[in-house]
Amino acid sequence: MALESLDTTLRDGSQCEGISFTIADKLAIISALDDFGVDIIECGNPYSNPKDNQLFELLKGKKTKKARLAAFGVTKKKGTKASEDPNLLAMLGSGAQVVTIVGKSSIFQASSVIGATPEQNLEMVYDSVSFLASRGAAVYFDCEHFFTGFAEDSNYAMSVASAAIAAGASCIVLCDTNGEAMPWQVADIASQMCASHPGKVGVHFHNDKELAVANTIEAVRAGAFHFQGTFNGFGERCGNTRLSTVMALLAASGQIEGVDLSLLTGTARLIAEVSDMPVDPSSPYVGKNAFSHKGGLHIDAVLKNPATYEHNDPAVFGNERHLLVSEVSGRAAIHSLVEKLSGEAGKDSEKTQAAIALIKAKEADGYQYESAQASLELLVMQSLGIFNPPYKVDLYRVIGEKNLGSPSNIASAIVKATVGEKTKISAAEGNGPVNALDLALRKTLISFFPSLSSLVLTDYKVRVIDSASATAAKVRVVMSYSNQYGSFGTVGVSTDVIDASFKALLDSFAFHLLQEELP
Amino acid sequence: MALESLDTTLRDGSQCEGISFTIADKLAIISALDDFGVDIIECGNPYSNPKDNQLFELLKGKKTKKARLAAFGVTKKKGTKASEDPNLLAMLGSGAQVVTIVGKSSIFQASSVIGATPEQNLEMVYDSVSFLASRGAAVYFDCEHFFTGFAEDSNYAMSVASAAIAAGASCIVLCDTNGEAMPWQVADIASQMCASHPGKVGVHFHNDKELAVANTIEAVRAGAFHFQGTFNGFGERCGNTRLSTVMALLAASGQIEGVDLSLLTGTARLIAEVSDMPVDPSSPYVGKNAFSHKGGLHIDAVLKNPATYEHNDPAVFGNERHLLVSEVSGRAAIHSLVEKLSGEAGKDSEKTQAAIALIKAKEADGYQYESAQASLELLVMQSLGIFNPPYKVDLYRVIGEKNLGSPSNIASAIVKATVGEKTKISAAEGNGPVNALDLALRKTLISFFPSLSSLVLTDYKVRVIDSASATAAKVRVVMSYSNQYGSFGTVGVSTDVIDASFKALLDSFAFHLLQEELP
Repeated sequence: MALESLDTTLRDGSQCEGISFTIADKLAIISALDDFGVDIIECGNPYSNPKDNQLFELLKGKKTKKARLAAFGVTKKKGTKASEDPNLLAMLGSGAQVVTIVGKSSIFQASSVIGATPEQNLEMVYDSVSFLASRGAAVYFDCEHFFTGFAEDSNYAMSVASAAIAAGASCIVLCDTNGEAMPWQVADIASQMCASHPGKVGVHFHNDKELAVANTIEAVRAGAFHFQGTFNGFGERCGNTRLSTVMALLAASGQIEGVDLSLLTGTARLIAEVSDMPVDPSSPYVGKNAFSHKGGLHIDAVLKNPATYEHNDPAVFGNERHLLVSEVSGRAAIHSLVEKLSGEAGKDSEKTQAAIALIKAKEADGYQYESAQASLELLVMQSLGIFNPPYKVDLYRVIGEKNLGSPSNIASAIVKATVGEKTKISAAEGNGPVNALDLALRKTLISFFPSLSSLVLTDYKVRVIDSASATAAKVRVVMSYSNQYGSFGTVGVSTDVIDASFKALLDSFAFHLLQEELP
Repeated sequence: MALESLDTTLRDGSQCEGISFTIADKLAIISALDDFGVDIIECGNPYSNPKDNQLFELLKGKKTKKARLAAFGVTKKKGTKASEDPNLLAMLGSGAQVVTIVGKSSIFQASSVIGATPEQNLEMVYDSVSFLASRGAAVYFDCEHFFTGFAEDSNYAMSVASAAIAAGASCIVLCDTNGEAMPWQVADIASQMCASHPGKVGVHFHNDKELAVANTIEAVRAGAFHFQGTFNGFGERCGNTRLSTVMALLAASGQIEGVDLSLLTGTARLIAEVSDMPVDPSSPYVGKNAFSHKGGLHIDAVLKNPATYEHNDPAVFGNERHLLVSEVSGRAAIHSLVEKLSGEAGKDSEKTQAAIALIKAKEADGYQYESAQASLELLVMQSLGIFNPPYKVDLYRVIGEKNLGSPSNIASAIVKATVGEKTKISAAEGNGPVNALDLALRKTLISFFPSLSSLVLTDYKVRVIDSASATAAKVRVVMSYSNQYGSFGTVGVSTDVIDASFKALLDSFAFHLLQEELP
């Protein structure tokens, strides 16, 4: 039986401190997980969270490549009817192909948290699952606190799982809700459960003892077909099972198919970027340092034969051995950009080499070009000596102030620029210093370049790069634009958020004007 | 036989990218590990690293409470005499009570890295260990690449270990140098080795597959008495076994004694501070989020009985429980805060209601308090009418500018504030507008409140909330601080990044002064 993965970054992962996804964030994550090859994507709880409900409405119009989408919810309340439960009805109404529903599998938890007797709890599970299944849903039943419940009273825990199966569940997911289980307990309990319910057992672990990955692979080895986690390990407390590690492990050993392992690192970094939760550099497979070598002896050995100090080729996972090579772009990508921009085909290694050197220097300075192709193209043009900006900014000045007397702060900016022989200076007020600067630059240039009025800023992101340097830290600003030719992104880096924004603004205006010039 | 821990933060851990310890750093770490109760502290390589040699000289005059200190080195070179090997002599001369020496236990590694035949390698191991042992040293032999070597040729790998034992080694440490072993392989191989060499087997894992902790406890379960790691998991690539997790696990289950578990979190944080490598908030046991709860249902349950969603009491490990306030969390967390701040127990639903209303209004405005407990407490105090800020800021003005003539941008700020009857105005320049503002506010207030000099900004994050509004979008700034009382976070929201930062700055200074006032 093929193994099956479920990612719950959007549901259980969002319980992680510091995470708050917008709907656009969620759509970006769903699309990345689908491209990578996750089998089921748990998108949220349509009943308890209005934002999730909105998401499911939007998703009704979209198709995935491979992934099935899941809606999450809890069993009906004690003493009510499943068919009237607004939570269960919301799950059915969500349009999701899979419903994942959680219930108690521990007598202690049932009595202390929901005040239910063992019998009442069993009835809640059976009735909820059977109602959902009767409406044609593929029901995955999350047995909350299964391993501790099993330790308390194995017969009761097993009877909860059996009730879910009898009611029509496709899968019973054994959950280690508090992250307490030891690998040998998991191997033992998962074996027993797989013997009773072959092809129906899944698992869900938390990392409170740093054992989530080990427990997951032990369960799979014992026969579980379904495993859950969050791609980057996000989750409450110490997080959920890190799916990137488990899937890399299982795919590298041929146990799962249909995933594009070369997207592993890119997927982790995209989720990190969207969540503003950087990938820990030491993360297995996907971290910046996962295949980096510092010891002189190790480096020598790796140069002789990478297998001496690497368990696998980093390229398999879309990662790299050294930090020196550009993250976005192997030399092939940069070479093809050089060809495109210089208009010359063929292998001019010198020009490509010079462009790579310039890009690496910028990357070392904190630039990242993944979301800023326009800035990358301008940089390569600069390296080729063919970038001639049509204007020159002589000066900018930004003033932000606040007086006790007035409730609101004021931001204003002055920009002076020269085009040909003419110099112009303009001022503008804005919602903040960056907005004021944007408006003042636009005002200064628009009489020379009226087409700038069609350039629309659609997105603005700020990221502190070395946050430990606190307010003196470097920031990276990424801006997204659209115009009549499509959309593009630019980037600027500085210790000064205004200066970083200004760099990205300048690239955007220049790139737009370049597009205008093209035949 | 009692279990024995070895910490190699100062040796293998220093192979981690970004780490470079001074001698003072190393002394601080040795002292913290000793206080906590680590059995052996590997301090460095006295031959290859002159700084380590200096450290060992200094350590000769110091006594530890409990820990034995170890010096690390490699076996003699092929075709030389052990008694003339400068590396082995340096280890003996270091004054360390234990010497840890590494050699190859894989034919592939021996031939491809040091060009030795299997026989030559065996002789190098035997001769080196026997020389060290003959001089009275307690010799721990690290069998590098043991698990892969065992898979290649189990007889050869075992013969290397046997040679070390025959030569007088106290312990053979089975090393998973590339982080490749699976837990069931470890259990199997460690059992075989423990059967052959009872009481002499140790283990050393790397985390490339996120299995280092699992592999360590499997080996201990199979009979290994000695385990190595680095307290915070530092190490090359994905790091070494995180000793804080392993020791917490083993101590909490009564398998090791003589450690002060209440120092666990403090030790991890001290090492993080000294290394300038922050503790990942989701680190098991010691992370800021290890015992944090965000979901409303979980918070309700934890307040009823912490065992519902916690594997252990955080205080046992010197850590704390955090109830995160978020859109999904319930009134219970806020009620307990109202009780704490008002000093009144009992269900005063009116006060709690008012606080919740205020928090919700702020959240609707874009505030998030999960990482900003200090701002939350100030807000609740405000709602209770008990917050009286000790100063009033009358005005701030920030100027950012750039001239074509000069390569760098300039940011400066002015802050005017009143304390009691006195008003003071100061100016400062900074790396950017926020840094300038931080410095000017500090300069203005520090003559009134000298204790502000002990308040250190440790982290600064900016998040654009509604990025589609582009440069006019709202931003949320979160700042993290530390002072003599611990660490805390504050938050500010505005369409103006400077204004948002200023709000967070004001909360931070006020919170610090409040902490000062408490008895």
